[in-house]
Amino acid sequence: MDKGVIMRENFIPKAWYDLRADLNIQLEPLVFERDNSSIYTDELLKGSDHAYVKIPEPVLELYAEYRPTPLRRAYSFEKSINSYCKIYYKYEGDNPVGSHKINTAIPQAYFAQKNGFNSMTTATGAGQWGSAIAFASHKFCLKSTIFFVNISLKQKPYRKVLMEMLGAQVISSPSTVTSIGKLNSTDPKKKNGNMGLATSEAVEYAITQKATFGETSHAYGVILHQTVIGLESIKQMEMFDDFPDIVIGCVGGGTNFGGISIPFLKYKIAEKHNIRFIAVEPKANSTLLHGDYKYDYADSGKLTPMIKMYTLGHTHTPDPIHAGGLRYHGFDPLLSKLYHDGHIEAQAYDQREIFAAGISFYKSEGIVPAPESSHAIRSTIEEAQKKDNKNKSILFCLSGHGYFDLSGYDFYMKNLHYDKN
Amino acid sequence: MDKGVIMRENFIPKAWYDLRADLNIQLEPLVFERDNSSIYTDELLKGSDHAYVKIPEPVLELYAEYRPTPLRRAYSFEKSINSYCKIYYKYEGDNPVGSHKINTAIPQAYFAQKNGFNSMTTATGAGQWGSAIAFASHKFCLKSTIFFVNISLKQKPYRKVLMEMLGAQVISSPSTVTSIGKLNSTDPKKKNGNMGLATSEAVEYAITQKATFGETSHAYGVILHQTVIGLESIKQMEMFDDFPDIVIGCVGGGTNFGGISIPFLKYKIAEKHNIRFIAVEPKANSTLLHGDYKYDYADSGKLTPMIKMYTLGHTHTPDPIHAGGLRYHGFDPLLSKLYHDGHIEAQAYDQREIFAAGISFYKSEGIVPAPESSHAIRSTIEEAQKKDNKNKSILFCLSGHGYFDLSGYDFYMKNLHYDKN
Repeated sequence: MDKGVIMRENFIPKAWYDLRADLNIQLEPLVFERDNSSIYTDELLKGSDHAYVKIPEPVLELYAEYRPTPLRRAYSFEKSINSYCKIYYKYEGDNPVGSHKINTAIPQAYFAQKNGFNSMTTATGAGQWGSAIAFASHKFCLKSTIFFVNISLKQKPYRKVLMEMLGAQVISSPSTVTSIGKLNSTDPKKKNGNMGLATSEAVEYAITQKATFGETSHAYGVILHQTVIGLESIKQMEMFDDFPDIVIGCVGGGTNFGGISIPFLKYKIAEKHNIRFIAVEPKANSTLLHGDYKYDYADSGKLTPMIKMYTLGHTHTPDPIHAGGLRYHGFDPLLSKLYHDGHIEAQAYDQREIFAAGISFYKSEGIVPAPESSHAIRSTIEEAQKKDNKNKSILFCLSGHGYFDLSGYDFYMKNLHYDKN
Repeated sequence: MDKGVIMRENFIPKAWYDLRADLNIQLEPLVFERDNSSIYTDELLKGSDHAYVKIPEPVLELYAEYRPTPLRRAYSFEKSINSYCKIYYKYEGDNPVGSHKINTAIPQAYFAQKNGFNSMTTATGAGQWGSAIAFASHKFCLKSTIFFVNISLKQKPYRKVLMEMLGAQVISSPSTVTSIGKLNSTDPKKKNGNMGLATSEAVEYAITQKATFGETSHAYGVILHQTVIGLESIKQMEMFDDFPDIVIGCVGGGTNFGGISIPFLKYKIAEKHNIRFIAVEPKANSTLLHGDYKYDYADSGKLTPMIKMYTLGHTHTPDPIHAGGLRYHGFDPLLSKLYHDGHIEAQAYDQREIFAAGISFYKSEGIVPAPESSHAIRSTIEEAQKKDNKNKSILFCLSGHGYFDLSGYDFYMKNLHYDKN
């Protein structure tokens, strides 16, 4: 596909990378307590047995409209924070929905259409995932219905507008269109909603409407699709004649962090390269630092399969004043195992710290980061200012832009500090 | 400056193009009724005597951070509107402030710093220009003060947040910090503000604070700086092995339209190529179709020089329900003459038409257009669907993104139609 003067097609990976298959990593299986598997496509649940999984042509064509995404050295930012390190960032926000979520929404919609579905449903916290499913559904002529966590919808009304422009039906969760929503919609303590509940609503709706469920993290395909981020980064770092010593990403369910890290994790695990991987959480929702590694549901209504993962518990509701995403109680199962096995570190920051980091980045590099991505920036600042890291190279994932998140930055600048973080 | 894997530097023009000097076009001079010339830099007022004006190195360095901007063929959009034409668009929204306005804000801030100014002031309607001055001022270590038309600020509060993140002081106009603001701030009919009044406030404030005035359109340098858009487009169209038959841009003051058109206008005027140039206005503010070609002020308080231009009158206040930009009563003096001499056509559309066009474009091409830019898209649709234009090539300027303008799209989708347009 001709994208004008910038001939970028050569750099787009033609296959996703399956670390699990490549290194024969054994994950404990999903446990279906109910037979809800009809709402998932096989491609999404299973992954494959090969290290490289061919990307279908219709998916590649849509990838080619925005990939490869830029990988830049942050010269101005390095200077502004007195960095001891070289800092690189992979920017996943320059696409029709503004975040990395599009990388898996496109193949999910493609597989849904291929498997005969007419519609998709999903749940969204901060709205990035809902926008991505709305866009991908539109491209593959599927109807989409998005359950948007009520408190986030109020904070980010324009995310809803964006989805509606793409033809999506957007429903505030808890809603009255599902039985589990009805059970919760009259409880004042639950009216803000949370990702666990919105997920239950979307799964129930998918079952009753014979739709497919747009999967945010627990199905293996999601993290597989995101490996395009890291695969491109390896080639792009080569063009800088460099290789990262530290790879950093923010984590909710873990998909952008996994996307950039997994292709590099092979070097650490199989080839014993000395690379650090830092997963950055909000203090309000620290699944890795404060959760348990055990079987749990992805939703509060227990409609999803049970997954062996790090979890804060499927009934966990993060403080509603926490404006950004990264509010999921669980964590990707492959990354959970890798964290458990000591290949990944975790850090957590509070809201004030991350908004300050985001503003500093915008002033230097000209991109307003999503508050989620600003977690990775905050960690980058900390590592870059350590004398011990002198001359090291840091690569972080700038997973999305923050043009729909300026109310959060506004609160921060007005010193409307959060009591908790 | 190294921008990663996409080596784009070779395509950036090293000089601006001065059609006026090249074709010896005589413009009637600015008439200063008051000696306010101290708030302007010479570079901005005068332009030069040469066809090509060297771009200073510090400006080129900042241009290199986002230029050349992409020029794309809109395959999906062509299909979705059953186009008889090839449609190309030059996208100026992918930069730190989201519109073409940055192209002149950077050199204006550079010249201000070079001439010893410590601060800039300006007026902004929809907020694009204020963001650009805030960004450029930050880059050249100048203070910035932005007078933001009250009604627009209410509709686009996040534009203010963006400016504040860059360290700008943002003041709602009419304000109480200038004498002309005070005169108008208590009049209920004037409390919404307008560009003429905000400009007066910014000029008065520049005089009293010994600041330079960030110039939106009447100083010659503005349109000169924007010619980078058209200069790049010529080279990029060559790479498509094509040349436009029709060039389209939205117009308020005329700078993005002028930027893309002026380098092509040489082919029409000097070499008699058969190219049409279409300037697209909102029906609520049709300066070309309904204004007069005469000397007028750029502001309602008569603090600016008088300019020979198309104007609706310096006291003109567009209907406040008109949400987008393109609300200036006047028009760039060079383009005014070219329009007067018959080299340029004008069209006007109402709000409903342009929002529908913008949504259709987003669904096909994945970019939400600024409502301003959607005027150019609406005109493109009209021309592309004419059988008489079969096989012609249309090039339009997509001057900015609409991620801060979703309230307008939301109103449209909710059928909250405007009574007037």
